[in-house]
Amino acid sequence: MPESSTALRLGLDVGGTNLRLGVFSNLTLLEETRFQANYSNICKQYPPGEAWQQILQVTAKAIQAMLDKHPEIQSIGIGFPGFINPKSGLLAQSPNLPGLLNVNLGRDLSQLLGRKVLVFNDGNAAAYGEYCSLELPAGGLLYAGLGTGIGGGLVANGKVWAGAHGYALELGHLIVEHDGPECGCGNRGCVEQYASATAIGKNYARQTGKQLSAHEVSTLASQGDKQAQSVFALAGEKLAQAIALTLNIVDVENVVIGGGVVSSWALMEASFIYRLQTDLIRVLRDKVKVSLSSSGDNAGMLGAALLADISV
Amino acid sequence: MPESSTALRLGLDVGGTNLRLGVFSNLTLLEETRFQANYSNICKQYPPGEAWQQILQVTAKAIQAMLDKHPEIQSIGIGFPGFINPKSGLLAQSPNLPGLLNVNLGRDLSQLLGRKVLVFNDGNAAAYGEYCSLELPAGGLLYAGLGTGIGGGLVANGKVWAGAHGYALELGHLIVEHDGPECGCGNRGCVEQYASATAIGKNYARQTGKQLSAHEVSTLASQGDKQAQSVFALAGEKLAQAIALTLNIVDVENVVIGGGVVSSWALMEASFIYRLQTDLIRVLRDKVKVSLSSSGDNAGMLGAALLADISV
Repeated sequence: MPESSTALRLGLDVGGTNLRLGVFSNLTLLEETRFQANYSNICKQYPPGEAWQQILQVTAKAIQAMLDKHPEIQSIGIGFPGFINPKSGLLAQSPNLPGLLNVNLGRDLSQLLGRKVLVFNDGNAAAYGEYCSLELPAGGLLYAGLGTGIGGGLVANGKVWAGAHGYALELGHLIVEHDGPECGCGNRGCVEQYASATAIGKNYARQTGKQLSAHEVSTLASQGDKQAQSVFALAGEKLAQAIALTLNIVDVENVVIGGGVVSSWALMEASFIYRLQTDLIRVLRDKVKVSLSSSGDNAGMLGAALLADISV
Repeated sequence: MPESSTALRLGLDVGGTNLRLGVFSNLTLLEETRFQANYSNICKQYPPGEAWQQILQVTAKAIQAMLDKHPEIQSIGIGFPGFINPKSGLLAQSPNLPGLLNVNLGRDLSQLLGRKVLVFNDGNAAAYGEYCSLELPAGGLLYAGLGTGIGGGLVANGKVWAGAHGYALELGHLIVEHDGPECGCGNRGCVEQYASATAIGKNYARQTGKQLSAHEVSTLASQGDKQAQSVFALAGEKLAQAIALTLNIVDVENVVIGGGVVSSWALMEASFIYRLQTDLIRVLRDKVKVSLSSSGDNAGMLGAALLADISV
């Protein structure tokens, strides 16, 4: 974590549907802007080059508005979904923003704004935000964010584990079912196809033919709809499978689950806990603490803001 | 890696069947002792307490013989199979040495010998040995050792990733097939049940009723035996599945595969490469270098010897 500072930091959390900007003084969110940017739809409606220009313009305009209001902002960081190299700023692929391939998010935004913008994988940024919010827990932290897609991030020894190319902790694209549903990444059976908000809607539609949002499926499940309940139970089980695989590899103590889908956690919890306990190696079973995000979903913005400061 | 030194270092590589001791001057193996210790059989034949005492005595005696011969040995490190905390020396469980639960390998051996012995997971030690043998490659290194069981280890930024409790990189116990064969760790469908030497013998016996060693199955496969060939093809596929999962999480550039089973690599390679390419996220597919161990299987001893020196 950067030293405590009187400077302001700007963090962005880019999702498939929402764009959020937060101005932070250390860990405190002073001001937030959030709006439906619907980058997923832009990518579906426009050719890649045009979609990219629109995304850049919308993002830059939102940042500029915050900079105009708070000229004392000293660093700008973005958590963006996709396979991103935080050193070069290159976005190699974004499974939920189809068409965006090998575009330089960091460079292009910095040019548009005339100042340095640092970019991070959204899961990595959120992991760092949770880690700082939880006052730097010992034993490392694994973050899983269940939104339009599934992001992941790992903090150990105080640092984000980005990997050799920035692609570490691609939790959402762990294959948990060979020959499972096709994923935006090009593979099949990724956990994102079971436990993301998008997947919950799709999997309910597969069973019933009804197109509903994850939120609507959740409401039905709470009212006793067995098919809706089974979709969430499957989500919990597959998420646990991916998290157990990850913990058997990285051996960290804390798991934090965030993103919009955790509002339906009660519907996933039983199958999640059962599968996590079953799939972990035995010596880890009593050593892992799983909690839901306590940051009110601000971790992505906060982490991006803080990481930008220490990465400059 | 420790500084270049004129001192000698002793490294042990403990397997289910063989015990190997190497005296090193920096990276050079000056002298090696290897014998069939058959710790697996000791664990099957004797009650846990007695098996443990036998294993300690055999190991200590072999170390003492080397110390008597080379009094200038300054550090002693052991790579041992199982879930080991390198800080405390505690062995929590060893799936291929049944009955050994919560014994303190580091403390007990140090007491018997009257000097400090450092203990490491065998896969972690071998990973470090490969890393140093390969002259510290950039981009990190993942090691998979295919022997009686399957060990794994990760070196990144020059350090072994041991995890919060020392249980990181339990590659052999990644579940690649729910409801697969039962594993010594207590779970089912671990990759160790497909790609270890033990598993190759067992899976051939399952198909044919014939009890053969992995080496014998390999000979049959080379002679055209279709069932033997299918056992190795399955081993390659399942190993690739576990390695792709791991790479999607840790994103390192180099993969080194070692252990006795690599002598049959030609029988596994096609299915391994196919599955690895399929299961990796696309952006990693051209970024991973897979090689076979070039250390002649000395990596475990070397890594243990070097790690003991930097861990004292």
